[in-house]
Amino acid sequence: MTHQIAVIPGDGIGQEVTPAAVDVLNALDVEFEFVEGEAGDAVKEETGEALPQETRDLAAESDATLFGAAGETAADVILPLREVVGSFANVRPAVSYPGLDAVQPDTDLVFVRENTEGVYSGIESEIADGVTTLTRVITEEASRDIAEFGFDYAEENGYDDVTIAHKANVMRTTDGEFLDAAEAVAEERGADYDTALMDALAMHLIMHPEDYGVIICPNLAGDVLSDLAAGLVGGLGLLPSANVGPDNALFEPVHGSAPDIAGEGVANPSAMILSAAMLLDHLGYDDEGDRVRDAVEAVLDEGPRTPDLGGDASTEDVTQAVLDRL
Amino acid sequence: MTHQIAVIPGDGIGQEVTPAAVDVLNALDVEFEFVEGEAGDAVKEETGEALPQETRDLAAESDATLFGAAGETAADVILPLREVVGSFANVRPAVSYPGLDAVQPDTDLVFVRENTEGVYSGIESEIADGVTTLTRVITEEASRDIAEFGFDYAEENGYDDVTIAHKANVMRTTDGEFLDAAEAVAEERGADYDTALMDALAMHLIMHPEDYGVIICPNLAGDVLSDLAAGLVGGLGLLPSANVGPDNALFEPVHGSAPDIAGEGVANPSAMILSAAMLLDHLGYDDEGDRVRDAVEAVLDEGPRTPDLGGDASTEDVTQAVLDRL
Ligand SMILES: CC(C)[C@H](C(=O)O)[C@@H](O)C(=O)O
Ligand SMILES: CC(C)[C@H](C(=O)O)[C@@H](O)C(=O)O
Repeated sequence: MTHQIAVIPGDGIGQEVTPAAVDVLNALDVEFEFVEGEAGDAVKEETGEALPQETRDLAAESDATLFGAAGETAADVILPLREVVGSFANVRPAVSYPGLDAVQPDTDLVFVRENTEGVYSGIESEIADGVTTLTRVITEEASRDIAEFGFDYAEENGYDDVTIAHKANVMRTTDGEFLDAAEAVAEERGADYDTALMDALAMHLIMHPEDYGVIICPNLAGDVLSDLAAGLVGGLGLLPSANVGPDNALFEPVHGSAPDIAGEGVANPSAMILSAAMLLDHLGYDDEGDRVRDAVEAVLDEGPRTPDLGGDASTEDVTQAVLDRL
Repeated sequence: MTHQIAVIPGDGIGQEVTPAAVDVLNALDVEFEFVEGEAGDAVKEETGEALPQETRDLAAESDATLFGAAGETAADVILPLREVVGSFANVRPAVSYPGLDAVQPDTDLVFVRENTEGVYSGIESEIADGVTTLTRVITEEASRDIAEFGFDYAEENGYDDVTIAHKANVMRTTDGEFLDAAEAVAEERGADYDTALMDALAMHLIMHPEDYGVIICPNLAGDVLSDLAAGLVGGLGLLPSANVGPDNALFEPVHGSAPDIAGEGVANPSAMILSAAMLLDHLGYDDEGDRVRDAVEAVLDEGPRTPDLGGDASTEDVTQAVLDRL
């Protein structure tokens, strides 16, 4: 069985790390057909559109999508792509690897971020001169769905601690809905869980990441807290993510297009290759996913390393080292 | 000249740390009249109201207010109190002290948080069964005011780096307004500044806090990022804050009522005493403010220390040590 994978490198270092992930997938004993699509600043400059209809269609009809990064147009590309694949869950593991100089070396967290609403589904307007509003939306259905997903994920992946993040002391109705729905799911399942105000959680995660496992979050909270976790483990060059829907999914590094280092060939491909490992899991190739993760982990431990991790290796050197260990 | 100070200890450790701050203020050569007011869970249980009208009036007519903490009713107490004193700016310094085992020992940050709008001024409703909305409000006026305040603060306190935090790539109209207004202020003043997406900023602050100084934030971003900074410097027991308006102000530790340790007499009074130091600055007693900060810093360095900092001293021991050094 051949799996069609949409490959959308995008801008900046997306162009450099996406081929690395494709090389790794090609080295495995799984049949893939890769079909490339365009998106981002460059295609917008040419065509006026950051996300052409062909690329949307490609993502919709493929078995899964690998996305690199986009520049200024990031929101115009990634938010519609997440929708095109029907992804309601954004899964962001943040793990510290031995040998790297992490701020907190005992971090093993997975953010399960609601991917469809909150301020992201917001309708905005300037209702008077200098007065603007955004309507934040939280529904019981989406909140239940992400909670079910989060508790399933924790169970399947052996995490004992599940935390529901919220700010229901201020956003009483909306985050109140999120919290109530998520707690109802936990209670129906008889699952253990904690709840945490997102501000206090930000502090505790930094001081004691080892106290947490899976963290179920509203959309913007998940955005901010997962980047925070990237800071704990050594930077965005390490964090993969999966956008998961009922029948389709998109995999992307948490990092952006990094215009400061784009074109130099020194971007860290780890986050992108680890995103490809999540794609393998998703398609049912868990063993291959583990093989890729083990190879990346070994290279992170022993080198070569790109400059973001204090080394002077190139993207290609690191990719080759991962390939050598598969 | 005697200054009337409203003193509202509130719940939990608020009852323990507020007297410490009053003792410190009383030890200085400044005339204060302290008038106590009630607020929080306990008074709500008795009277049905977390923030009685007398307490509002007291805060409104005093020269400044010292507030401890509230429990479950925190939002019902602190949000109206911030409004009663007309505070549009919430100032939260986060500094690592030598000798403490901070996650990042080179942290010297000041969050200047917009204190009146964003999701905090939100009107919420359940518009259909299981469908809830919150209207987030951002105005040009409030955004300009907080930016002016932030740039003034940076200038007066010798901070070279000013960063405007936002999420305008998603909240294009509302955070777009915030960002445009703040950038316009910077440009009118000819001030140097940077802008940062709040998610990316969360990561960079953890890895490189030394790159930042004053951070001007929308309301919720300031809430989360300042707690994050508390995590970097050793916990909420250390962070004071000032809620500043044109003619009045309220000073409170960033921490809450800490029900887990309340009643044991071991709460760290540093955040509260440092809040009193900010009160001194605000009333024009900068030298006394510095004396208090120096005394707290010396005690943090040499002990005694409360359990949150790895010691076994009591609130009273620490307060006495601060008094001894004044
Ligand atoms: C580019 C932006 C719209 C996006 C988001 O906010 O979700 C990014 O920060 C991320 O987390 O993937
Ligand atoms: C208690 C709560 C309403 C408050 C806030 O969100 O502002 C608190 O978290 C704080 O930061 O002082």
